[in-house]
Amino acid sequence: MTARLIIINGGSSSGKTGIVRCLQAVLAEPWLAFSVDDFVDAMPAAMDGSAAGLEIGPDGEVSVGPAFMELEAAWRTGIIAMCRAGGRVIIDDVFLGGGGSQQRWRDAIGDVETLWVGVRCAPEVVAGRELARGDRAVGMAEKQALIVHEGVTYDVEVDSAHAESIDCARTIARYLA
Amino acid sequence: MTARLIIINGGSSSGKTGIVRCLQAVLAEPWLAFSVDDFVDAMPAAMDGSAAGLEIGPDGEVSVGPAFMELEAAWRTGIIAMCRAGGRVIIDDVFLGGGGSQQRWRDAIGDVETLWVGVRCAPEVVAGRELARGDRAVGMAEKQALIVHEGVTYDVEVDSAHAESIDCARTIARYLA
Amino acid sequence: MTARLIIINGGSSSGKTGIVRCLQAVLAEPWLAFSVDDFVDAMPAAMDGSAAGLEIGPDGEVSVGPAFMELEAAWRTGIIAMCRAGGRVIIDDVFLGGGGSQQRWRDAIGDVETLWVGVRCAPEVVAGRELARGDRAVGMAEKQALIVHEGVTYDVEVDSAHAESIDCARTIARYLA
Amino acid sequence: MTARLIIINGGSSSGKTGIVRCLQAVLAEPWLAFSVDDFVDAMPAAMDGSAAGLEIGPDGEVSVGPAFMELEAAWRTGIIAMCRAGGRVIIDDVFLGGGGSQQRWRDAIGDVETLWVGVRCAPEVVAGRELARGDRAVGMAEKQALIVHEGVTYDVEVDSAHAESIDCARTIARYLA
Repeated sequence: MTARLIIINGGSSSGKTGIVRCLQAVLAEPWLAFSVDDFVDAMPAAMDGSAAGLEIGPDGEVSVGPAFMELEAAWRTGIIAMCRAGGRVIIDDVFLGGGGSQQRWRDAIGDVETLWVGVRCAPEVVAGRELARGDRAVGMAEKQALIVHEGVTYDVEVDSAHAESIDCARTIARYLA
Repeated sequence: MTARLIIINGGSSSGKTGIVRCLQAVLAEPWLAFSVDDFVDAMPAAMDGSAAGLEIGPDGEVSVGPAFMELEAAWRTGIIAMCRAGGRVIIDDVFLGGGGSQQRWRDAIGDVETLWVGVRCAPEVVAGRELARGDRAVGMAEKQALIVHEGVTYDVEVDSAHAESIDCARTIARYLA
Repeated sequence: MTARLIIINGGSSSGKTGIVRCLQAVLAEPWLAFSVDDFVDAMPAAMDGSAAGLEIGPDGEVSVGPAFMELEAAWRTGIIAMCRAGGRVIIDDVFLGGGGSQQRWRDAIGDVETLWVGVRCAPEVVAGRELARGDRAVGMAEKQALIVHEGVTYDVEVDSAHAESIDCARTIARYLA
Repeated sequence: MTARLIIINGGSSSGKTGIVRCLQAVLAEPWLAFSVDDFVDAMPAAMDGSAAGLEIGPDGEVSVGPAFMELEAAWRTGIIAMCRAGGRVIIDDVFLGGGGSQQRWRDAIGDVETLWVGVRCAPEVVAGRELARGDRAVGMAEKQALIVHEGVTYDVEVDSAHAESIDCARTIARYLA
């Protein structure tokens, strides 16, 4: 496949960021990596913790409001424009809406060739990794581990509970040869 | 002016990031903030320190290569697409090429209404602030303080050596009313 | 004065960290810099947000419990032991209890020669700087600006609203000559 | 064992930090966690990259000079004083000198009861994890993986290539019951 866009979906603490860095290292061409966390960081601070923006509940439940979704749509459009302008882009996202989230990307993608990647990791494993990293609301990882994959279809899936980031990256890279 | 894009140019340690955060806080609408540093973070790690990518000399001199410029052009195109898709965007950039850097943005911008902002700060002041923040190559700030403004035209200029970030932000915000 | 310990007290967002980095740069001898934030980072994550540990209220009000104070006393004892063992140490602290906080340090210090430094910054200025840095609970800076200095005595005071970090550092350094 | 001090030794990218966070979470008492990286951050910036301080070679080889070792000795003395003053402390260190590094701790420890923990991880695994985290000099992890354990004796050893951080933490915690 000669994709210009790789979209990697997985729950919090499933190890996507590490896999993306390894993927950038093993791929011959330079790929830009953006994450939905970068988008969140780009929002005004006041939207963090507001119903219109992004709220994280006491047990790590994430909910997003209309202003968040509107800006996110503009962000997705911009990412696809980078691909059309000759860039190669890796996106690291969390499909809180499962198949619905994938469809929102599809609406923006049009005919840009895309490799869809799922990063799975057992709920009990991500719960431990969340504790180890120490910078996420406790409970978020376990909550997201399964739901983000509901109704989503992939070109390739990796399991970060049973493979190192670098090995997941090599598996993904083979689909781009 | 009813701009959808604010481009803020200034040298390293001139306080752009703080001004941008304040600007997001004082503006009524939600604006997304992206920085050229975000773009650099999105590049593969291997491009950091390579002639094709980005090199920082021992005295803080920054030079960028062809692969960097090619990817950066795609990034700029994507940012403008976000504006066209309804997003409001603040860009925090360092015009290493002065007026030439501004022209590269203009080529991408087309008819998107843009507010051009210059953040000035005296070389001897940024040198001290660079020391205080402790995470930038020593010498970079002083080197960039004047050259980034050469041949650049602005709608509004602020001087962060003589005004707090919040006051600079309020000055800029008045141009958008 | 031939102090082996410099204790710098000031409210949140008063610029202590930047002043400390500049102080390390201008002093001839190597000084180790520790902050009460380092102590907080060393605590178990579970103590953050607990009544026994550290709580930050919705308006940035900080309160600490008995487990926090007990561990902090051990931490202070350790810092003083570093000085007695030949180290030179700069402490960056927030005297939430004003003169009472200073007395707790004095009880640990014994005869170790100490330079007491106050960093003042007007409440309205720190409120703006808090917004600019974007990583502190809004309201904390203004709340602490005056109360941390109540009942505290200093060898030297600087005002970071009217002087750059590097200039504050030079002022402090003169007292050690 | 009723230790007041846990010293965890392992090479770069062996996962010590994550294990320490999990250990703080599973232990009933509050333990303070400090790392040799905290000590390095406390040094003046000018010592980073100097022969007297700390140098990191192009292949990730770390060497430390006399000023570094002198300050580090004062730091160790301070840590032990925290334990004697009633604190419980976990240290995360990299024994670049193997058994010699352990002896330097022993000289400071005296009769403070200590649990010695080794974190092993195969060189090829840490090399991949170093790539995944993206913030360490490439080559450092592989170089340190074996040498840091030479001539060191432990109360308990864990292998982070084959066990999650939380499981390593639980193994360690059993030795403190």
